[in-house]
Amino acid sequence: MPFRTPFTELFGIRHPIVLAPMGATSGGALAAAVTHAGGLGLIGVGYADEEYINREFDAAGNQPVGIGFITWDLAKNPKRLDVALARKPRAVMLSFGDGSPFVRPIKESGAKLIMQVQSLALAREAKRLGADVVIAQGVEAGGHGGDPNNGRSTFPLVPAVVDAVAPVPVLAAGGVADGRGLAAALALGAAGVLIGTRFVATAEALSHVNVKQRVAAAGGDDTLRTRVFDIGRVIDWPEEYTGRALANDFSGRWHGNEAALRQALDTERLRYFAAAGKGDTGTMVVWAGEGLDLIRDVRPAEKIVERIVAEAEAALARTSAARI
Amino acid sequence: MPFRTPFTELFGIRHPIVLAPMGATSGGALAAAVTHAGGLGLIGVGYADEEYINREFDAAGNQPVGIGFITWDLAKNPKRLDVALARKPRAVMLSFGDGSPFVRPIKESGAKLIMQVQSLALAREAKRLGADVVIAQGVEAGGHGGDPNNGRSTFPLVPAVVDAVAPVPVLAAGGVADGRGLAAALALGAAGVLIGTRFVATAEALSHVNVKQRVAAAGGDDTLRTRVFDIGRVIDWPEEYTGRALANDFSGRWHGNEAALRQALDTERLRYFAAAGKGDTGTMVVWAGEGLDLIRDVRPAEKIVERIVAEAEAALARTSAARI
Repeated sequence: MPFRTPFTELFGIRHPIVLAPMGATSGGALAAAVTHAGGLGLIGVGYADEEYINREFDAAGNQPVGIGFITWDLAKNPKRLDVALARKPRAVMLSFGDGSPFVRPIKESGAKLIMQVQSLALAREAKRLGADVVIAQGVEAGGHGGDPNNGRSTFPLVPAVVDAVAPVPVLAAGGVADGRGLAAALALGAAGVLIGTRFVATAEALSHVNVKQRVAAAGGDDTLRTRVFDIGRVIDWPEEYTGRALANDFSGRWHGNEAALRQALDTERLRYFAAAGKGDTGTMVVWAGEGLDLIRDVRPAEKIVERIVAEAEAALARTSAARI
Repeated sequence: MPFRTPFTELFGIRHPIVLAPMGATSGGALAAAVTHAGGLGLIGVGYADEEYINREFDAAGNQPVGIGFITWDLAKNPKRLDVALARKPRAVMLSFGDGSPFVRPIKESGAKLIMQVQSLALAREAKRLGADVVIAQGVEAGGHGGDPNNGRSTFPLVPAVVDAVAPVPVLAAGGVADGRGLAAALALGAAGVLIGTRFVATAEALSHVNVKQRVAAAGGDDTLRTRVFDIGRVIDWPEEYTGRALANDFSGRWHGNEAALRQALDTERLRYFAAAGKGDTGTMVVWAGEGLDLIRDVRPAEKIVERIVAEAEAALARTSAARI
């Protein structure tokens, strides 16, 4: 039994479940699978170029999907937005940076504008800019997001954002990995959820098989928010964002010793890329959120969507039965 | 309409709502009010002595209440547990430190043992020790708790703890301030909630009126986790815990400059205590969680409990209606 929310109504879809546009992970095949299962798949651009965008839209076939950009990186080569809009995406999601230059072309293309925020202040700004959907992302999320010094956690952030941007639909992001999370997000007033880490451990994700298996095996106590992987890959993320990843040998050596890592970058950078090339998760980054405890298998994305919906129904039935 | 959960069954109470035992805040009057409203009130000991414990049990009158200790501080003067157990508390809650020396006297007294944890590893340990109830506390909670470096956020921590300690009932703590939060906690599999900050802004709290008004006025973006207030008050909290409080002049000056604060302690300590004595919230600590956005008034505790239950019912009805 599907859930009908202002978000599913806006997109005319069956399930209020959105694939997070994870770079080098959420390719066209995964996005298409999530859309086909009744949710909304978003291709993740990351730091990739126009060719990648076209290739992944091709991979999505005729399934209607959307796309998500890292806003500060998009600003370095904004032609990528034109390439994406030419593919008629259902939605364009902007995260991490000043989205204002991109609002008008996105809305004029007919795509819905989804803006992800990490605080109540940013939520108010997204509403002012005309976002069709606002995503409230907690610091428990995998990958990049607000650092705990300026970001917020999902549980209290979601209802606060819902109140602040009403009637704009809000999705919960960060820590959602099963149907209990979907049911809880709806109870908090969200119109749906954005899910990342759970979709890494799927057949369709572009990730290395070792990464998928680490995600299925690890637990939420094993993650940390850090800058060391960005330093090692020489990607200059703005100061206000960190990324949540699995702790590994690389983070154990450099987290807290960032200045020394910058000094050693000539060799560490090469070592990092060599490890990433062969899927060595002791050195390469495995972005992952605190929802890891709820992820124990690698499955086709469609099965994940079906299971989350069934679990959400069960959670809601159980909770409703507690009323006497 | 009340909610029946394994927690309400265990205590024979109407609502799965527990008052967090906040030191110098959750006195006997507030604990009694929450119990009278159908929840479970816990007196907060903080760093106080036997006389305080007896006075606050007296203030609770004939309402059955429980009590909560800071475990590492209790170990400095464990006679306080005997004094508390002589008052026949419904429950004893232990947080922050090694609870193992206190498990046996608590259970032998007939009180229920409630243990608060900040990670999945600590949750497994609490189950092993024989906790009757486990509280999963996220880093968004006000006051002391896990630092983001080792603690977890409420949304993903709760279902992971539920799975790990089943069939022991779990309460969600951190970011719960209204009925949407109660409904969401139940959806995540919790058997109830522990609420702190919302009960600061009540008629019965021991807090200074200026503190209550700041809690009602401030927002969740305005908090930070810090050690500076503990340093200023000369309270030696273990390294693994920080406290979430409202940012103010004092934290603005010293957060990130902790070594300098320690150097200036001879004068800063006196300045801090003078400010605390007159309720000057520009300098004194106002512990508060990220649920602040959901708190906009100072009310009697009974009204708060009633409102949370009504809101939870509404949230659940709304969520159930989304199923089509």
